Amino acid sequence: MRAIRKPRPEPGLEVCEVPEPTVGPTDVLIRVKHAGVCGTDLHIAEWDAWAQSRLHPPVVVGHEFAGEIVAVGDEVPAELKVGQLVTAEGHIVCGHCRQCRMGDGHICRNTRIIGVDRDGAFAEYLAMPSGNVMGLNGIPTTTGAIMDPLGNAFHTVLTGDAVSGGTVLVLGCGPIGCFAVGIARAAGAAKVIASDINPKRLELARRMGAHAALNATTEDVPARVAELTQGEGADLVCEMSGHPDAIRQAFASVRLGGRINLLGLPQGEVPLKLSNDLIFKGVTVYGVIGRRMFETWHQMQRFLSSGLLDPTPVVTHTFPLEAIHDALDAIRSGAAGKVILEIGS
Amino acid sequence: MRAIRKPRPEPGLEVCEVPEPTVGPTDVLIRVKHAGVCGTDLHIAEWDAWAQSRLHPPVVVGHEFAGEIVAVGDEVPAELKVGQLVTAEGHIVCGHCRQCRMGDGHICRNTRIIGVDRDGAFAEYLAMPSGNVMGLNGIPTTTGAIMDPLGNAFHTVLTGDAVSGGTVLVLGCGPIGCFAVGIARAAGAAKVIASDINPKRLELARRMGAHAALNATTEDVPARVAELTQGEGADLVCEMSGHPDAIRQAFASVRLGGRINLLGLPQGEVPLKLSNDLIFKGVTVYGVIGRRMFETWHQMQRFLSSGLLDPTPVVTHTFPLEAIHDALDAIRSGAAGKVILEIGS
Amino acid sequence: MRAIRKPRPEPGLEVCEVPEPTVGPTDVLIRVKHAGVCGTDLHIAEWDAWAQSRLHPPVVVGHEFAGEIVAVGDEVPAELKVGQLVTAEGHIVCGHCRQCRMGDGHICRNTRIIGVDRDGAFAEYLAMPSGNVMGLNGIPTTTGAIMDPLGNAFHTVLTGDAVSGGTVLVLGCGPIGCFAVGIARAAGAAKVIASDINPKRLELARRMGAHAALNATTEDVPARVAELTQGEGADLVCEMSGHPDAIRQAFASVRLGGRINLLGLPQGEVPLKLSNDLIFKGVTVYGVIGRRMFETWHQMQRFLSSGLLDPTPVVTHTFPLEAIHDALDAIRSGAAGKVILEIGS
Amino acid sequence: MRAIRKPRPEPGLEVCEVPEPTVGPTDVLIRVKHAGVCGTDLHIAEWDAWAQSRLHPPVVVGHEFAGEIVAVGDEVPAELKVGQLVTAEGHIVCGHCRQCRMGDGHICRNTRIIGVDRDGAFAEYLAMPSGNVMGLNGIPTTTGAIMDPLGNAFHTVLTGDAVSGGTVLVLGCGPIGCFAVGIARAAGAAKVIASDINPKRLELARRMGAHAALNATTEDVPARVAELTQGEGADLVCEMSGHPDAIRQAFASVRLGGRINLLGLPQGEVPLKLSNDLIFKGVTVYGVIGRRMFETWHQMQRFLSSGLLDPTPVVTHTFPLEAIHDALDAIRSGAAGKVILEIGS
Repeated sequence: MRAIRKPRPEPGLEVCEVPEPTVGPTDVLIRVKHAGVCGTDLHIAEWDAWAQSRLHPPVVVGHEFAGEIVAVGDEVPAELKVGQLVTAEGHIVCGHCRQCRMGDGHICRNTRIIGVDRDGAFAEYLAMPSGNVMGLNGIPTTTGAIMDPLGNAFHTVLTGDAVSGGTVLVLGCGPIGCFAVGIARAAGAAKVIASDINPKRLELARRMGAHAALNATTEDVPARVAELTQGEGADLVCEMSGHPDAIRQAFASVRLGGRINLLGLPQGEVPLKLSNDLIFKGVTVYGVIGRRMFETWHQMQRFLSSGLLDPTPVVTHTFPLEAIHDALDAIRSGAAGKVILEIGS
Repeated sequence: MRAIRKPRPEPGLEVCEVPEPTVGPTDVLIRVKHAGVCGTDLHIAEWDAWAQSRLHPPVVVGHEFAGEIVAVGDEVPAELKVGQLVTAEGHIVCGHCRQCRMGDGHICRNTRIIGVDRDGAFAEYLAMPSGNVMGLNGIPTTTGAIMDPLGNAFHTVLTGDAVSGGTVLVLGCGPIGCFAVGIARAAGAAKVIASDINPKRLELARRMGAHAALNATTEDVPARVAELTQGEGADLVCEMSGHPDAIRQAFASVRLGGRINLLGLPQGEVPLKLSNDLIFKGVTVYGVIGRRMFETWHQMQRFLSSGLLDPTPVVTHTFPLEAIHDALDAIRSGAAGKVILEIGS
Repeated sequence: MRAIRKPRPEPGLEVCEVPEPTVGPTDVLIRVKHAGVCGTDLHIAEWDAWAQSRLHPPVVVGHEFAGEIVAVGDEVPAELKVGQLVTAEGHIVCGHCRQCRMGDGHICRNTRIIGVDRDGAFAEYLAMPSGNVMGLNGIPTTTGAIMDPLGNAFHTVLTGDAVSGGTVLVLGCGPIGCFAVGIARAAGAAKVIASDINPKRLELARRMGAHAALNATTEDVPARVAELTQGEGADLVCEMSGHPDAIRQAFASVRLGGRINLLGLPQGEVPLKLSNDLIFKGVTVYGVIGRRMFETWHQMQRFLSSGLLDPTPVVTHTFPLEAIHDALDAIRSGAAGKVILEIGS
Repeated sequence: MRAIRKPRPEPGLEVCEVPEPTVGPTDVLIRVKHAGVCGTDLHIAEWDAWAQSRLHPPVVVGHEFAGEIVAVGDEVPAELKVGQLVTAEGHIVCGHCRQCRMGDGHICRNTRIIGVDRDGAFAEYLAMPSGNVMGLNGIPTTTGAIMDPLGNAFHTVLTGDAVSGGTVLVLGCGPIGCFAVGIARAAGAAKVIASDINPKRLELARRMGAHAALNATTEDVPARVAELTQGEGADLVCEMSGHPDAIRQAFASVRLGGRINLLGLPQGEVPLKLSNDLIFKGVTVYGVIGRRMFETWHQMQRFLSSGLLDPTPVVTHTFPLEAIHDALDAIRSGAAGKVILEIGS
């Protein structure tokens, strides 16, 4: 079958033929229809320090996808059937560590990620453990293919019960930030403020429902947030950029007693004025990793199936599998929304 | 000044002249502009068993209102100013009992309610402790006058974090039930189902955003809820009627692990199949009384000021103070939404 | 192998020889050392209405046990090893229904219970899905064998965050009630009040740490609770008896804003004064079923391993497998604590 | 009356005669019996940058105390009576800002602190708003005098529901850290690990119940915590020192999905590896300031009245009012526990 592979421990990806995966007793074989391209895939292509430390090529990349079940193992429950359209959580967790046992599988200490630690979704076929697979129930595969990053946004926005009636500040309007804007609106935020340095991304945030879209290059974000909130600050800050400046803005913009959910990954150390910005303000900070398994997936299905949220404006580019390098270039440009691959039909 | 008073321990209310209230050092004097008429006022007028056990006439009735500050005591904080439009929580709590100290003032064991335990709001002027008074910040006094029952609805819908993306069932579409429908929509419910026996009230529930409005006289409510939720049941049931049949429907309609918030007050005992309907289902039930002081008021201000919620379709009748008996008749009819009095101008 | 079986759809149990269970790829084969005898086993023996509606004989009974792994299937994770001492959750859940996906496996709609819906633990060997199996990590098998009912007690006492520094009332001092007393003490309750009608059980509650043990036959439980709490009532009521009188005492004894966790299963309908006892008091009621999977099991391991809780005083009787009828008689007497069987050695 | 005063904007404190305070209609006049000396008092004495920016001398210092009511204003509720032994929250909040209205008075934006922003407790008499005053109900005034810092410890340990059955790491064993150790034990922690650089303080932590007391000068704290927790890390880290090294240890020692409550105040910026230490670990961080008003005070009363907690071993020094400079020297030494003044008798 055709697949996109990291062939060797060096920069680059190749489109090539690889054997179809085999299916164990608890696995499901899926024919991939659409797949999302992620910044992680770019790191793998460019073979950065993280990729070098984590991957063992050759490995088929890609971890965001939706497709159709074409075979099921003997022990797969009856809920999953051949012909069904599905997506899947790409983190395969152990189920036995303390985190898994406590309902926190998203921070399983033995997680194996498809497209990173084992063969992934940029391929015609993919084998997944049945417990990771969920029916789409009418959600199209173009949306199913982006439920992994959409789930990051749900996890970020809906952790902490500060949204309904509240002010939400989203720092960083890449695809996940734009999703977060839409989710905050759907969940009843009274005011959603978005910030980025790229005007195209700000335009996308506005389309997803941001009441105000701040250009962090020219505007003083905390000052503008104060102005827009009668001096109170934001109830919830979703930090989606990982940029140290944005992280400082997060702490300066959050209200007394407010919450900061950090999703963006800063490199190295970030200096923080903990006394003034966190302790005296009585702030709560939470680190967001992955999607809660599987509460977040269930939330997504309900928001998507009911029409509360339409994430499709964020999808700005679609490429065939063979054009993976064009897809990565679109991401590199910094102006794209979500980029997806059309693999099957 | 003119006021509506329960003059003697017997049925009836009278419109009469009474002395203006005096203002202590921590009090605010308010000229009343609009006031809401409540089922409680009807019980007082009709002098039912509860009223007989609780009131000590003569007492000026009415506990829902909005108006303008005309005088402030020496110890009143600077936030409250003459000329300001305000509303107030009508439950005056002790601040020293365990409940008050734990942040649960709504269940203070020493609560005194205006219009019940002391002179109330159906009058040209009213003195209130400053701690109970809140600025309207642009909310009109017609809406300010109904923030007491609106707050009951907020307290009912928003206790338990089950609304965003969830299915909410509202049993009983009197004014508070109709408010609940609108709040559930504003807070991001994926599906809101309302039920009543009165077609006019169901029409009002539809206007407030109910996706489905069930006539409990002709429809099997739990069966219809199951049908509308793929057999799962409702995530949150708001019981606003107090009718034993509706309470049974609440338990039969809630999903496994769901929540029932009870606001409607049944008379006497209600027989419940606790094993099958509550314990095996892992259900949580919560009794709603009043408004959380003052979290609920703050929530309301944000939903109203931001335009997330417009409660005005629920207000179906406005009368002058002198027409209190017409106002009570409108409530008695069972087909009215919220009924308010215009007192000042 | 030897086992205790419900052979036919009629009253009675038999000790007999049955084939050893086979082990699938995701299963673990366990040699049972100790097993707990439960009221449910009595219902099965006596073939009551519930048993008639649920069981399909022949079936090996028993669902509480601990033992040693003697074989593992090919897909079983490396954490589980031959020779390891383990216990297991007896509810085998589907993993795919909404409740399972939301982390509420204890109310899975497709649960199959060992010893009820499939062969159980009163046997020399038992096959269990590996996901249900947990290492004992030094906890003895006599305690491992009772972690199922102990988990009911943990689930009841620790749901709601009312224990540390609070007053806990335990109604019903059977084994699970006595466990609840010990757990409340270990979790920092300031005052634990227990109630029962049997002096032996009250004595056991006292041994587990109850500050006061009320005889409900001769004492007015709500009055005594009021006296012991300066008129406030209990922060948390754990209702473990299922008796309608105790349920009424629960509502009468809980403080304003308090919590009632219902574990005992009443038969038929229980009439409740919802207005006065639940709504005006702002009370929360929660139905406890099973153990949270697997948060409750993890909590138990920590309380037991650290020595915070010693449940062994509650175990009053130990019988060999062949003496199952003596074990059931001990339970019938109403004066026993926990009864266990010694099966392997 | 005698009082300890910051007379002028320069280093130093003086013991002098000042006029007795007057009592407004909502105030209570208290004869001080015991008062706690705090690091804040040392900052005021030494006239550091914070003190220079905040205080307007002359001002009577001291904010931790207990004493006897000797007079009440006309509007003071009947719960407070002449002759009653009381303590008080020293933060006088506005009651009208968003934080106060939402039940978060501890982060009121208009707080005025006794002994800092207005005359304080190191005096024979003190006037307090009645809402801040709480009866001791049998708690001795030596303990009542330290309920302010004890409340900091309660707020730190009991925020987040991670204590019962969990592992708690306390970094910094000054008086509040030592209190935290005792509270964690009383609330049912399975393991309490304390760390400091001073052997005397570690000895005090052991006396308060620490299972392990680590000397951070000679031991690798995160490595030791890992060892003591089978590699999992601590469920809750209470950071009481404000030292950047300890803050780094907090992040390195907390388990995946764990919680860090920060009370100690670092100076300047602290560099944090947010990606690895917070985001990938799914950690929650909370800034602790003051005491929740008044949930924390209520908790304290219950733990103290029931005997769950005895904080008295932490009180290592008692001085008369005149010996304030000796008291400050004891604090400066770094080896003292809690230092109190005996003022009345």
